[in-house]
Amino acid sequence: MRRIITISRQFGSGGRELGKRLADHLGIAYYDREIITEIAARSGMAVQYVDSIIEHRPMLAYPITIERTFDFMADLRENPQFKVLAEQHTIIEEMARKSDCVIIGRCADYILRNENPFTVFVHADIESRMQRCRIREQGDHKLSDDELKSSILKVDKHRAKYHAFFTDRKWGERENYSLCINTTGLQIDKLSLAFAQYLKELG
Amino acid sequence: MRRIITISRQFGSGGRELGKRLADHLGIAYYDREIITEIAARSGMAVQYVDSIIEHRPMLAYPITIERTFDFMADLRENPQFKVLAEQHTIIEEMARKSDCVIIGRCADYILRNENPFTVFVHADIESRMQRCRIREQGDHKLSDDELKSSILKVDKHRAKYHAFFTDRKWGERENYSLCINTTGLQIDKLSLAFAQYLKELG
Repeated sequence: MRRIITISRQFGSGGRELGKRLADHLGIAYYDREIITEIAARSGMAVQYVDSIIEHRPMLAYPITIERTFDFMADLRENPQFKVLAEQHTIIEEMARKSDCVIIGRCADYILRNENPFTVFVHADIESRMQRCRIREQGDHKLSDDELKSSILKVDKHRAKYHAFFTDRKWGERENYSLCINTTGLQIDKLSLAFAQYLKELG
Repeated sequence: MRRIITISRQFGSGGRELGKRLADHLGIAYYDREIITEIAARSGMAVQYVDSIIEHRPMLAYPITIERTFDFMADLRENPQFKVLAEQHTIIEEMARKSDCVIIGRCADYILRNENPFTVFVHADIESRMQRCRIREQGDHKLSDDELKSSILKVDKHRAKYHAFFTDRKWGERENYSLCINTTGLQIDKLSLAFAQYLKELG
């Protein structure tokens, strides 16, 4: 049986690292930034531009409550932002068809819902996420605790909105996932081994 | 390090079986009905009576919104139902101190919150829970699908209320658990092995 593992994660929860290490342990493909690079290669757009659409402006500048008339849809299809997102959809489907894989974010759990993916949500308490972010923090300008907390919550809010825009599911809601993993107090390398064992045993 | 695993579960999700098998795989104690028997033994009350309080009438016949005055508390302490619940609290603490163990339900996740328990919530979609209940169904009188669904949801509602009465946490809310396991489409025996591996690897 083909195994597709999708990982959604709160910012700073270690979900991306968990996914990467898991793919290594299982010896299967890992897709994250690779998707952006592939969209850029296919569309001829700059990676930075694709990135800005996917990561930072997925709402297409249309309010979510806009009435979706035919005119709106026709207009949308001509929109370069929509094209990028449609391409992302196609690429995720292609990657999942190709081989077993771990896919990070990008509503892959929803896009691949008919392929019976193993869907994971990775979360942690805010203190432990702040701590994880501090370790990664670079440069001279350190954020204050309040600034850091607020920027973490902002990313999550954005992810939730992105999910709400493209799916009929609520981001992070337990019911929508095969497994919700709380990484608070855990080391991701150890956890990734444990998770790999879990999946191997489930078969 | 001592390992205490608490399992909260939706009715029909297979959480109890998962807990039992997990304890067997890990070679540690398992507490579920054992707690009721112990309360009965200590209090001299009949098992059935203890059972009726713990399983079926944990709200002590007091509305949850009642103003908790001193009079109310004094009155409460004399209440046999309260005594049973207080005894349950003590026994759970004692059991957790004694050795590694799996404890099913009974707000053990909250009661033992200072012992760093590994807290699990087991859930599944309603169809799969109905299917699991059908397998266990005995006797001639079979419930209709609607009756079965409604009785499953009723038990869960009761569990959520019980939790709300005794803790400051929301039952089943992802944030409150180390792991949320969705058993939809899974065989509990296989899952229990996978989960045991997961915990062994985490150490």
